[in-house]
Amino acid sequence: MIENEIISLIEKADKIAILPHVSADGDALGSSLALALALNILNKKPVIYFEEEMPSIYGFLPGKELSRIYEGKPDKYELVIALDTGDLDRLGKRVEIFNNAGITVNIDHHPTNTEFAGVNFVDTNASAVGEIIYRLLTMMKIGLDKDMATCLYVAIATDTGGFRYSNTTPDTHKITADLINNGVDVSYISQTVFDTLSLQKVKLMGKAIENLELFENGKLAVIKITDDLLKSVGAKEEDCEGIVNIGRNIEGVEVAVVIRQRASGELKVNFRSKDYVDVSVIANRHSGGGHKRAAGCTVKGDINDVKEMLVKEISEVL
Amino acid sequence: MIENEIISLIEKADKIAILPHVSADGDALGSSLALALALNILNKKPVIYFEEEMPSIYGFLPGKELSRIYEGKPDKYELVIALDTGDLDRLGKRVEIFNNAGITVNIDHHPTNTEFAGVNFVDTNASAVGEIIYRLLTMMKIGLDKDMATCLYVAIATDTGGFRYSNTTPDTHKITADLINNGVDVSYISQTVFDTLSLQKVKLMGKAIENLELFENGKLAVIKITDDLLKSVGAKEEDCEGIVNIGRNIEGVEVAVVIRQRASGELKVNFRSKDYVDVSVIANRHSGGGHKRAAGCTVKGDINDVKEMLVKEISEVL
Repeated sequence: MIENEIISLIEKADKIAILPHVSADGDALGSSLALALALNILNKKPVIYFEEEMPSIYGFLPGKELSRIYEGKPDKYELVIALDTGDLDRLGKRVEIFNNAGITVNIDHHPTNTEFAGVNFVDTNASAVGEIIYRLLTMMKIGLDKDMATCLYVAIATDTGGFRYSNTTPDTHKITADLINNGVDVSYISQTVFDTLSLQKVKLMGKAIENLELFENGKLAVIKITDDLLKSVGAKEEDCEGIVNIGRNIEGVEVAVVIRQRASGELKVNFRSKDYVDVSVIANRHSGGGHKRAAGCTVKGDINDVKEMLVKEISEVL
Repeated sequence: MIENEIISLIEKADKIAILPHVSADGDALGSSLALALALNILNKKPVIYFEEEMPSIYGFLPGKELSRIYEGKPDKYELVIALDTGDLDRLGKRVEIFNNAGITVNIDHHPTNTEFAGVNFVDTNASAVGEIIYRLLTMMKIGLDKDMATCLYVAIATDTGGFRYSNTTPDTHKITADLINNGVDVSYISQTVFDTLSLQKVKLMGKAIENLELFENGKLAVIKITDDLLKSVGAKEEDCEGIVNIGRNIEGVEVAVVIRQRASGELKVNFRSKDYVDVSVIANRHSGGGHKRAAGCTVKGDINDVKEMLVKEISEVL
């Protein structure tokens, strides 16, 4: 059993580094922190290396004292564990730590994982890497405390969209039951992680709604975000994340599009569909990519011309 | 055990009516439909009486063929079961069916329940009445099918705010694991129940954001909704539900207020707080009521004067 092999490697190693993917999300952060907290109890001197600062909404997560931001010049580690990382590119600069390691382990749940490590444990049935870490800690008989449970809860809750995505399984809920039993503060975490928005983001949402246009009897929603609009509310490019869902969530809408002017002058386009349109086909036509229900591309041109072109293309498949 | 008493009453009865509360929400609807589907399998001829039409977002729920809208002239039922109903007022006109019944049962989870029936089963630890119905059906050894599981999932998911409120317990998640095991389509239900908004509601949200004002260094958010604004986006009074959360969810906001002009000319005020302000104190001062973190009142006067008065009152406790 691969789990036993990994546990044995951990037991033998003394100096262990943990590497979540670049732009670490709730699952990458929560899994890394939970594992580090557990290894710390076993006196394994764990260090988490992040590529960049943690997003502020995760500032409440325990275990941060076991992490640092990588600044080059890799130490030598007996064991390096990559978490939630589909391929080596997703380690960014920290690939230096990975390449400098004695033994490498890759724990992930992405079907596209390239099995890049010495030991690879990819469980595509796990909703989050947090589920896999939960099982490992349980097998290692490390009693979960509130801190570890909190980190794992955040990992699982964020990667399942708050238990709403189709990757949510009976096991997801059974594990979550045990995490709450160990003291997780559900409402505080949910409020912080899911329901807290910056003023700039809220104002951007307001402007996006003001600019929203419907076509094809309300089946197509298009939002244009110009650079001027972004500046007018003091929002940043990252605040545009999720804006496309405003269109998608409207009753009767099948395809939602956000066309965003970047500082570079290029236009970034996000597509979402609800039931039957394969938006990756449209994104591919413009050298983009993605899935049936979520895709994107980058195009050049005037924002209004691009809008008209896309409305025409999408209308044909609605 | 009260559960056994209720099961025995169900087994003895032939003609059974189920009464959820007026303006039935996800828990009232889902619990009623799941119970009716189960009783139907036992050939108990169950009928659910609704006070009014079901909200359209719940149109996908199975078991509707066992329900009807009450139109007066109550039939005589051997057994009437009120669900999720805190007191007799919450039965509306259907109190006639209740008063005309042989035996009455009250199954609820509200701490304020007045125990108005012959047999009262109030479990305040249950996140939703759906949890209580799940346990009853399990005790009755009725094998859950996908339809019943779907109804109970909606009951539990909605009453816990999608597993985010503090009423979410380990048992909530354990039960949900079993419901998903019985075939619940998590992503379809979540999209339909939590993420679908009418165009009018989205436009109202946009206007609300445009009108949002911050006071006290961003700790107080106030949104005014005039009758004209509501009409300008084609929204109805019910679309105002939840608008107060737009303010509350902004980073740094402690108290959010929505002041809404009603067609009658009165002003309806909703208060929400995040961490430390007891908004029920302010609502009480204006003959309203509620909880520490969620309260409301109705006042008369000019909307701008009322806004200034409330800003002053709330500033004193921030």
